[in-house]
Amino acid sequence: MANRPFDLAGIWPPIPTPFGPGGEILFDRLAQNLDRWNQEPMAGVVAGGSNGEFPLLSAEERVEVVRHVRRHTAPDRLVIAGSGMQSTAATISLSQAMAAAGADAVIVVTPSYYKSRMTAAALVAHYTAVADRSPVPLVVYNVPANTGVDLAAEVAIELSRHPNIAGIKDSGGDVVKLARMAAESREGFQVLAGSAGFFLPALAVGAVGAVAALANIAAAELSELLRRFRAGDADGARALQARLVDVNAAVTSRFGVPGLKAAMDLTGRYGGPPRLPLLPLGEAEREIVRRSLKQGGIAIGRQELGG
Amino acid sequence: MANRPFDLAGIWPPIPTPFGPGGEILFDRLAQNLDRWNQEPMAGVVAGGSNGEFPLLSAEERVEVVRHVRRHTAPDRLVIAGSGMQSTAATISLSQAMAAAGADAVIVVTPSYYKSRMTAAALVAHYTAVADRSPVPLVVYNVPANTGVDLAAEVAIELSRHPNIAGIKDSGGDVVKLARMAAESREGFQVLAGSAGFFLPALAVGAVGAVAALANIAAAELSELLRRFRAGDADGARALQARLVDVNAAVTSRFGVPGLKAAMDLTGRYGGPPRLPLLPLGEAEREIVRRSLKQGGIAIGRQELGG
Amino acid sequence: MANRPFDLAGIWPPIPTPFGPGGEILFDRLAQNLDRWNQEPMAGVVAGGSNGEFPLLSAEERVEVVRHVRRHTAPDRLVIAGSGMQSTAATISLSQAMAAAGADAVIVVTPSYYKSRMTAAALVAHYTAVADRSPVPLVVYNVPANTGVDLAAEVAIELSRHPNIAGIKDSGGDVVKLARMAAESREGFQVLAGSAGFFLPALAVGAVGAVAALANIAAAELSELLRRFRAGDADGARALQARLVDVNAAVTSRFGVPGLKAAMDLTGRYGGPPRLPLLPLGEAEREIVRRSLKQGGIAIGRQELGG
Amino acid sequence: MANRPFDLAGIWPPIPTPFGPGGEILFDRLAQNLDRWNQEPMAGVVAGGSNGEFPLLSAEERVEVVRHVRRHTAPDRLVIAGSGMQSTAATISLSQAMAAAGADAVIVVTPSYYKSRMTAAALVAHYTAVADRSPVPLVVYNVPANTGVDLAAEVAIELSRHPNIAGIKDSGGDVVKLARMAAESREGFQVLAGSAGFFLPALAVGAVGAVAALANIAAAELSELLRRFRAGDADGARALQARLVDVNAAVTSRFGVPGLKAAMDLTGRYGGPPRLPLLPLGEAEREIVRRSLKQGGIAIGRQELGG
Repeated sequence: MANRPFDLAGIWPPIPTPFGPGGEILFDRLAQNLDRWNQEPMAGVVAGGSNGEFPLLSAEERVEVVRHVRRHTAPDRLVIAGSGMQSTAATISLSQAMAAAGADAVIVVTPSYYKSRMTAAALVAHYTAVADRSPVPLVVYNVPANTGVDLAAEVAIELSRHPNIAGIKDSGGDVVKLARMAAESREGFQVLAGSAGFFLPALAVGAVGAVAALANIAAAELSELLRRFRAGDADGARALQARLVDVNAAVTSRFGVPGLKAAMDLTGRYGGPPRLPLLPLGEAEREIVRRSLKQGGIAIGRQELGG
Repeated sequence: MANRPFDLAGIWPPIPTPFGPGGEILFDRLAQNLDRWNQEPMAGVVAGGSNGEFPLLSAEERVEVVRHVRRHTAPDRLVIAGSGMQSTAATISLSQAMAAAGADAVIVVTPSYYKSRMTAAALVAHYTAVADRSPVPLVVYNVPANTGVDLAAEVAIELSRHPNIAGIKDSGGDVVKLARMAAESREGFQVLAGSAGFFLPALAVGAVGAVAALANIAAAELSELLRRFRAGDADGARALQARLVDVNAAVTSRFGVPGLKAAMDLTGRYGGPPRLPLLPLGEAEREIVRRSLKQGGIAIGRQELGG
Repeated sequence: MANRPFDLAGIWPPIPTPFGPGGEILFDRLAQNLDRWNQEPMAGVVAGGSNGEFPLLSAEERVEVVRHVRRHTAPDRLVIAGSGMQSTAATISLSQAMAAAGADAVIVVTPSYYKSRMTAAALVAHYTAVADRSPVPLVVYNVPANTGVDLAAEVAIELSRHPNIAGIKDSGGDVVKLARMAAESREGFQVLAGSAGFFLPALAVGAVGAVAALANIAAAELSELLRRFRAGDADGARALQARLVDVNAAVTSRFGVPGLKAAMDLTGRYGGPPRLPLLPLGEAEREIVRRSLKQGGIAIGRQELGG
Repeated sequence: MANRPFDLAGIWPPIPTPFGPGGEILFDRLAQNLDRWNQEPMAGVVAGGSNGEFPLLSAEERVEVVRHVRRHTAPDRLVIAGSGMQSTAATISLSQAMAAAGADAVIVVTPSYYKSRMTAAALVAHYTAVADRSPVPLVVYNVPANTGVDLAAEVAIELSRHPNIAGIKDSGGDVVKLARMAAESREGFQVLAGSAGFFLPALAVGAVGAVAALANIAAAELSELLRRFRAGDADGARALQARLVDVNAAVTSRFGVPGLKAAMDLTGRYGGPPRLPLLPLGEAEREIVRRSLKQGGIAIGRQELGG
């Protein structure tokens, strides 16, 4: 059970996993990317999330990536590791392996294959069993667009009573639900917006930060949005939110991980190709991403890497 | 074409239509309700919207209700009349009749029966044709839970260029979309939250008010929420929003119009029965509404009327 | 209450309403179309259904169309009139008016605007009230693609006990549901496929006929399919079903009423434009319909009418 | 590439994986179940499908189960092994391992986590890459209720041209789609119904068999249904289909794998508990399954095993 204080407030990029042309993990590229993120304003990084293509990695690869991420992340920053599997037992094992590899917390996506049986009771039992045996705090991860499962506010509120469950990342975009979770969960349970698209409205109803694909390329902007909100600058926050909506769509709902990787390439990081069955963007889609970045005021790198 | 200034900012109850036990409209009860709303803080009322059971009224009844509402509403307040029909021609006729009956603006729900053909082009053509010929400003009304049609942000943005289209009421709850519409539509086009459940986050991204079922029984609370937001009291606004989430669900998503009518009865207004095929709430459901009202701090009337 | 035998078995075109360029009903064109249908194999016609654009007609127009249809339909054929409205009372009135105008039965679409309140209890109460007071037999009409409401098998089975409810037209395409309704409803209750796309599989599980848009232009083919099925010619029936799948999509799910009207024009009938907000097909879409007709072996008329 | 003839026609139970109370695989129980299936009429078995809880097994366990199944299945019967993974490369590896373990064919579920990027192009590339390198024939597996991905008829038709893709199991229940795939795919490509609920209508439009959970406990009934259909006994086939609809729902859509396992226990086979996060049925649900079995005329075993 975690003993140290653990705070989810702030900006968290869910970092992509860099692959070479044959699908091999490029650990040196990962280190380069981390060097750059280390200089940007954020609370830490999430490794092995949806944007990390975790379902396309073996369990061993997932642990290896987290070990590498921890080694190359500034010591004062936190590393949250994705450890969700479809089975409860496998999720427990992987959570323990992630802690051993240096993760400060684990983030656990809802099991999803047997959707119709993922009742409130099943989800509560699953998360309780994992949190009971995880050596580090657990963050619930709800992402209906990928899983087809939408963990209800009631379930999150019930889970918030577990001392080893620190909060939830919710990517569903239902702010009424975010509001309920923020208002009705136990004191100290933290809610993170799962996308930059609804970051400001999420803050308005009580979220404390964001795990957002966009943070991989625009941590400064999201950090500034958070600062303005906290400072009571409603107009300034709204203006920044409005500027980011389209570019955020390009790297999330519209083009997914391949879109994020293209945006990484276009901003001087290493994005590279996704693993199959994900296909890289075609040139036309890439051009749309480029234009979105430009309109959103995201700095385009002088050189494009990877691809 | 409207020439006078028209401002959607503020709180708008979409008022229910009071029926007697045989389904007949009770105009005197309507006047009593209006007397009370006239003393509560709001910009005006919306008559003949979804909560007014417009699909269960004939076109003649819809006009008669609006005429009566205009007569009994304080002169400094606005009356927006629902005038949507499935056909474009019928919507034009009804909009003209509503203006003649004293409506200050019309609110036009998306046609919905031929869902798969309600393309962007079809919706733009429909609203343009109606706005061209409506004597009063038009408010677009998007309510996917009722219509199964979700008018896209792009369509709203395009429609915002029409001089006689004043704004949109969107009940879908997608704040990313609200943000886009607020940011990218023409100057002066106004966005209204279509439910109190996401009023604060909607304000955060640029909405200027709400047409919310809850305003029928809690206009003071919603008005206070708006005041706090405008005053930069983020914590106070959030606390009030949190308090209203459950009671709002009771009178919208959970129990619909019959829930709202029960809440009207329970707060000393006249709610009464809905028209068939809507069934009034059973006693158990009514009890849930009562408890929600209490928990939300909404004043319960000493006597229950109607039902 | 109907006293004469009433049989839904067979092929029924849900006939379109012919409009002129200004949206006016062209009764002479309607009569011409009926002259041709009178020479084709079918049990009768359905007037004022979804393909008749009933939501875009006034109640008066709907009755007038049925009166005209009855007058121009061969006396030994039946006319079923769409009489569904959103309110129960209005549906009763219109059903009575349809009977007075000569309809042999009415077909009543599910009320749909207050979707979340269209519970089993509400639907049973609605249909029971209408059937109690309709002078002619009632056919339940379930079309989720238009209404967003899916009347459950259990509801249909319960309604089948009403002596004035003759059957159901179900357009949802869920054959498991069709099988349940055919097997578990009262003796004599008849199930009709609501689309030619699943006509043969519907027959296999107990349906007795079809109300299918395609029957407007291919009654002979559908009649032959039914004959082959009844004769035990499984291979022949399957071959014909396969031939019709694509052309059926063109006049239903793919292009809707405008697609059907284009197909009418292309086969020597009068289709003409739909009423707004429905837009007529563009030239490219029209070409796809033409090709589908050709591939499906549907006779193309020498001259195109209307459009 | 497979050289021997391979025929999917007939009945295939997707067999469950028996677990002990701690979640351990009970290989002896598996052998017992297979001894019984060996005496029932079927073409072979599918191991490691959705009903085999494959997402809750490690890749190594999946291979071990198939090796065991092949060893205990009658030599003249075929074993189809589930080998789908989220990544293309891992699916290829597992397909090869399954062939080495004795599988006669592999069945490959659609990748599903990155739903919005599972375009036609991505799915064609994925299946082509796997089929190119699988030593045994490949069966495409489409199960939208679990995956949230619905592989389109067009994709199946394109894939049918690959010489190593033998057919498709489609569990979606859309018979129009089944009809299109049966009619428009290459000669020899075979379509299997993915559920007993729509077996007869699927046969009517050209399917040749079924991979159906119900076959685990009612292979004789499904085999008889197939016989009647082939013999032209439309009424007899329909009667049997009608009898099986409710019991089929109990072991599929209604209660899923836990429902099937309860039904196994109730019919004298070993069902036992599922792996977490799947929860076993409660007593009330179990009673519903018992009643469904009885009403469906499925023999209840004298003793209940497992549970």
